[in-house]
Amino acid sequence: MKIARFYLDDINNISYGKLVNNRIYELQNDPIIGDKSYELSGEKFSSSEVKFLPPVTPPNIIAIGLNYSDHAEEAGLEIPDQPLIFAKATSSIIGPQDDIILPKKAPNQVDYEAELGVVVSKECKNVSPEEVDEYILGYTCVNDVTARDCQQRDGQWVRAKSFDTFCPVGPIIENELDPDNCNIVCRVNNEIRQKSNTANMIFSVEEIISYLSHNMTLLPGTLILTGTPAGVGLSYDTDKYLKAEDEVKVEISGIGVLENQVKKC
Amino acid sequence: MKIARFYLDDINNISYGKLVNNRIYELQNDPIIGDKSYELSGEKFSSSEVKFLPPVTPPNIIAIGLNYSDHAEEAGLEIPDQPLIFAKATSSIIGPQDDIILPKKAPNQVDYEAELGVVVSKECKNVSPEEVDEYILGYTCVNDVTARDCQQRDGQWVRAKSFDTFCPVGPIIENELDPDNCNIVCRVNNEIRQKSNTANMIFSVEEIISYLSHNMTLLPGTLILTGTPAGVGLSYDTDKYLKAEDEVKVEISGIGVLENQVKKC
Repeated sequence: MKIARFYLDDINNISYGKLVNNRIYELQNDPIIGDKSYELSGEKFSSSEVKFLPPVTPPNIIAIGLNYSDHAEEAGLEIPDQPLIFAKATSSIIGPQDDIILPKKAPNQVDYEAELGVVVSKECKNVSPEEVDEYILGYTCVNDVTARDCQQRDGQWVRAKSFDTFCPVGPIIENELDPDNCNIVCRVNNEIRQKSNTANMIFSVEEIISYLSHNMTLLPGTLILTGTPAGVGLSYDTDKYLKAEDEVKVEISGIGVLENQVKKC
Repeated sequence: MKIARFYLDDINNISYGKLVNNRIYELQNDPIIGDKSYELSGEKFSSSEVKFLPPVTPPNIIAIGLNYSDHAEEAGLEIPDQPLIFAKATSSIIGPQDDIILPKKAPNQVDYEAELGVVVSKECKNVSPEEVDEYILGYTCVNDVTARDCQQRDGQWVRAKSFDTFCPVGPIIENELDPDNCNIVCRVNNEIRQKSNTANMIFSVEEIISYLSHNMTLLPGTLILTGTPAGVGLSYDTDKYLKAEDEVKVEISGIGVLENQVKKC
């Protein structure tokens, strides 16, 4: 099932819905804090008459670095022997119909990173890999946008990855998916830049969530980014960083396409 | 004014209040999302009959590293030429009457870091140092607890600083304070370990908040940690890391004492 979060201008209301083709069937409850029964309200809308919002409003955005060996190689960094954790500020999140804004402070080396996102459904602490599945609401596409110059300069990655609009998420959450076998592609202006499969991840979704849950309590709605494959702008000899008016698409099989325009500040 | 957030067992209710000596005068509204009028409800309590909670529930915890030159020196790291940003997961927050739990994953090098905390009152973006004051709700004591072994191992600091209970905050928020001239002391079992004054910070509160606001939008309730002076456990030749049953106190003049017990997992 594809779960959308959307805004309806007419009635100034934010709702969740089940997306089927181009129709949205409104859910009675928030599927994250609600009872997860996915009962319908009876209302339905055409997807063209609503605004799609980020499908989750996370209390924390936790990300895993260097989780595809080809990306670790292109970045000139060692493959970690346990998941490498970092964070993005929750203020950086945008939805599938919002723009990525090149920040005034750092407009020149803004890079894309296509990633499988995992949404936690309930409080998760000290969970084994085998138990992880029951703590997952579903999966979404994420673009872990990064200002490479800031990342290089700071050493700590939080600022480089937390500028406003640097966390596009969506278009929906899919709750029926095998996260270990999804094609993942990133296109900029329809040119393929990244192309891989989540089977190539060094640490699987189960291993990541179990590991995280032994290091912190994952609160309901936590968004977890599982790493990006080779082909980020950084890896090219020519300037492949994002420019104003670029169109970036993160596509994950079984979920859909997260598409955002890039704009000047 | 000293603003407390507290829990009253009898009526299973969380409120804010104005603390005057040992009495709490309940506020009508949440001072962060409310209208900041600080109107009283008419109810009052003795501070011994309530449980003090973390005075804020932040959407992000943003911290500044190496903001006292004597601490940068003892850590063997260079003084940064702009504020160094990192983050703690919001799930790590505890209040002034909660225990710091030594995590099973990393119990041996758990360190204290006394810091002045700043609470943001309203959305703050691209604000000059001169304008910062109107975006600050007030100030509190924070202990930026850190597992040094994880910090060393990961390189990125988020995991080492995000274990559950690793962000004690409180006891209250003081909204009338000169943040540039506060004595700050950390005691473990009444032995002074850190002793400095916020006048020694490399970047002042105004400079930090202005800088942050040019890099991300600070949402209402954001908690900002402004760095720690010399004297952390790491700096001693003998083992001064926190042990079960230790009592850690962070005292900042004009705010009060944040006291937490250390417990085994």
